[in-house]
Amino acid sequence: MDEFEAVVERVRERVVPDAEERERLDRVTDELVERTEAAVADLPVDAEVRLVGSAVRGTWLSGDRDVDVFVRFPPDLPREDLEEYGLQVGRAVLPDGREEYAEHPYVTGELDGFDVDLVPCYAVADATEIRTAVDRTPFHTEYLAGRIDDPDDVRVAKQFLTAVGAYGSDLRTRGFSGYLVELLVLEYGGFRGLVEAAADWRPPVRLDPEGHGRGEFDDPLVVIDPTDPGRNVAAVLSATNVARLVHYARELLADPRVELFESRDPDPLSPGEVRAAVERRETTPVAVRFDAPDVVEDQLYPQLDKALGGVEGALDRAGFDPLRSARFADETAVLLVECEVAERPAVERHEGPPVGVREHAEDFYETYADSEADGPFIEDGRYVVERPREHRTARALLESDALFEVALGPDVERALGAGYEVLVGEDSAALADEFGVELARYSDPRP
Amino acid sequence: MDEFEAVVERVRERVVPDAEERERLDRVTDELVERTEAAVADLPVDAEVRLVGSAVRGTWLSGDRDVDVFVRFPPDLPREDLEEYGLQVGRAVLPDGREEYAEHPYVTGELDGFDVDLVPCYAVADATEIRTAVDRTPFHTEYLAGRIDDPDDVRVAKQFLTAVGAYGSDLRTRGFSGYLVELLVLEYGGFRGLVEAAADWRPPVRLDPEGHGRGEFDDPLVVIDPTDPGRNVAAVLSATNVARLVHYARELLADPRVELFESRDPDPLSPGEVRAAVERRETTPVAVRFDAPDVVEDQLYPQLDKALGGVEGALDRAGFDPLRSARFADETAVLLVECEVAERPAVERHEGPPVGVREHAEDFYETYADSEADGPFIEDGRYVVERPREHRTARALLESDALFEVALGPDVERALGAGYEVLVGEDSAALADEFGVELARYSDPRP
Repeated sequence: MDEFEAVVERVRERVVPDAEERERLDRVTDELVERTEAAVADLPVDAEVRLVGSAVRGTWLSGDRDVDVFVRFPPDLPREDLEEYGLQVGRAVLPDGREEYAEHPYVTGELDGFDVDLVPCYAVADATEIRTAVDRTPFHTEYLAGRIDDPDDVRVAKQFLTAVGAYGSDLRTRGFSGYLVELLVLEYGGFRGLVEAAADWRPPVRLDPEGHGRGEFDDPLVVIDPTDPGRNVAAVLSATNVARLVHYARELLADPRVELFESRDPDPLSPGEVRAAVERRETTPVAVRFDAPDVVEDQLYPQLDKALGGVEGALDRAGFDPLRSARFADETAVLLVECEVAERPAVERHEGPPVGVREHAEDFYETYADSEADGPFIEDGRYVVERPREHRTARALLESDALFEVALGPDVERALGAGYEVLVGEDSAALADEFGVELARYSDPRP
Repeated sequence: MDEFEAVVERVRERVVPDAEERERLDRVTDELVERTEAAVADLPVDAEVRLVGSAVRGTWLSGDRDVDVFVRFPPDLPREDLEEYGLQVGRAVLPDGREEYAEHPYVTGELDGFDVDLVPCYAVADATEIRTAVDRTPFHTEYLAGRIDDPDDVRVAKQFLTAVGAYGSDLRTRGFSGYLVELLVLEYGGFRGLVEAAADWRPPVRLDPEGHGRGEFDDPLVVIDPTDPGRNVAAVLSATNVARLVHYARELLADPRVELFESRDPDPLSPGEVRAAVERRETTPVAVRFDAPDVVEDQLYPQLDKALGGVEGALDRAGFDPLRSARFADETAVLLVECEVAERPAVERHEGPPVGVREHAEDFYETYADSEADGPFIEDGRYVVERPREHRTARALLESDALFEVALGPDVERALGAGYEVLVGEDSAALADEFGVELARYSDPRP
């Protein structure tokens, strides 16, 4: 056994559940199916109960406690009935559960230490005919059933991507979904095959396991869904997370080691350490901090990303030269932009039209001739003025209405409207109280 | 008589020499021709004496004291003989004169209060066959003789361009030459015609009085030389000076006034006023000051312009964001760049290749993995590092070898090599001792 296999073997021991854990899961799923079928029997319509996800596929990681039960209703059932019956079954199965809302409402709760989602969907005949996004899931479970030779290899792959920070198709991570990992392990004949292939990936990479793909995709990784030729399973995956797999695949091949399967869990930075980092780098961090809107993460993070891009763009256009940025959320939400430039002068250059374009040129000259601006003068045949600058510091910009002129996303915009603070320079050390770990990662960035 | 004509009439009174001045000039030119012909008679070759320039064309401005006498030698005369005979004649005519060197040596001196240049050239048959640049001049005088109806209109035009700062084809000014002004007044039928046309110019503007132009020119104003179809008389004219004529032509038409014919002659700024200007604008002026190289202006200014462009480019690439720049020369020479940014942080962003381009990516990662740089990390699928910045301030940059890595021009490079000082921020106030007037113009820029 070579070094690579030896390392994988050690990882396997950690991530494959033992017999006791398997039995516990079996007991729980048996009971869940039984309870759900009993509840379905009380409904005025027929419905089919399905276990889906990694629990039923045997690819969950040791310690995972997630079970998904789907209830598949006839496609002609009106949506409001589906929602009503779905909740009715959910409440019967998980009396202490609570309602959540994705594309439609479902019940989530606990049973014997497992986190259970009880999700209603439509029993469409084919994944191309789905009416809601969750209708697709049972087809994925069906497709993979019996195709995965070694589910433990999938577990190793998931653990690797988790350690790398690239696992999870939620909109905070934009990483690899469980289904995507299983398809990749299948495609490349195991974890090692996947690692060896990924080390050589040069995005865009396109895979089509069933050879039935339709349409073009503009994503760095395209994996045509075997159950739906029009869908890219990796649509949500970011270019950065694809590159992370490529990078760490090379690392693992060059020097196989168990640490590459262990999540990086840095000590939180203290406020003093944040100040020291700012002093060392001589940059000007600027943070907008506000109460995090009370919405689910898949609602929150896309808005934070949008708002961060908007703020970064505004700071860039105003000349504060963003170097790097990040967003954090917990009780408060933070848009952090580390700027290279702390202040701009009182004047800014503003180029007018070529003097030869008479009408425009005369308008421009008249506008500025008796203004506060220096000039107009001529450079290379154009009028130029140096006019008073609107925002001399990043703080002035972010404390002005200019913040609300960038695209923020509705919940973030509302939250900012209710109030926010701007932390500049060493004042950003105050963020360490809530986001010390995030700042530690920011301060020592890795692939 | 309308307002425009009334203003021109008043300008005319100032710029047209009176009878006494004309008589004085006639006496001087008569004597010059006589002396020169006597000196030529002593030579072993035939040569023809010609008065050229505005004095003989009757277009000199009142108060001008320049007379050019050309001695035209046979085209087959070896160059070294031409130079020797030329100097011999020059010394005989102007015993107190001194030698100057343009394309070849000539003698310059004074006679009865006039500045006289005595220039040898080749008597080629046609302006297209010239052997040195000055051979062309007699053809210009010949072409204009008899064509200018009203030489006083040329005088008014020259005065206008002088006031505007756009008169003179020397390489410091890059403005309108006397010959060019005469051709333009001829083309547009007088000063008013020129002003009305120029107000509507939309460069590039092309004129070809003899309709014989050959070839394309990339200049904002093209006036094909009536004596040479392959030459643009306005080749040296800058886009800025063309735009100046356009701008002030409009001003003069909109509100005719004598002040537009008067040179702007601001009071020099004091060091305190320079400091106040810097404080008001909140910029960071950076000046490189050195002993002016001992070369003629037409050698010096193109090199200063080149060096200024190089320094400005280096400051721009290093992130100090030049706002405006200027060069001054007298005893010392100064390259002044007014920057928007005083300092950059200790780190600078450096983007590497996409992680997917394996060989480059691995090289990049290895280079930086164990370096002082922060990172490598991944952004949008690429490696990025933040490495220590080379120059944190404009002063550090300009006091380093980086100054000599930009194109400077040989004489400027030599002068800088002998030593220079860098003045930053309010220290630039020290320039006011030598360049107070130039700084006053810089500080209150006009078209």
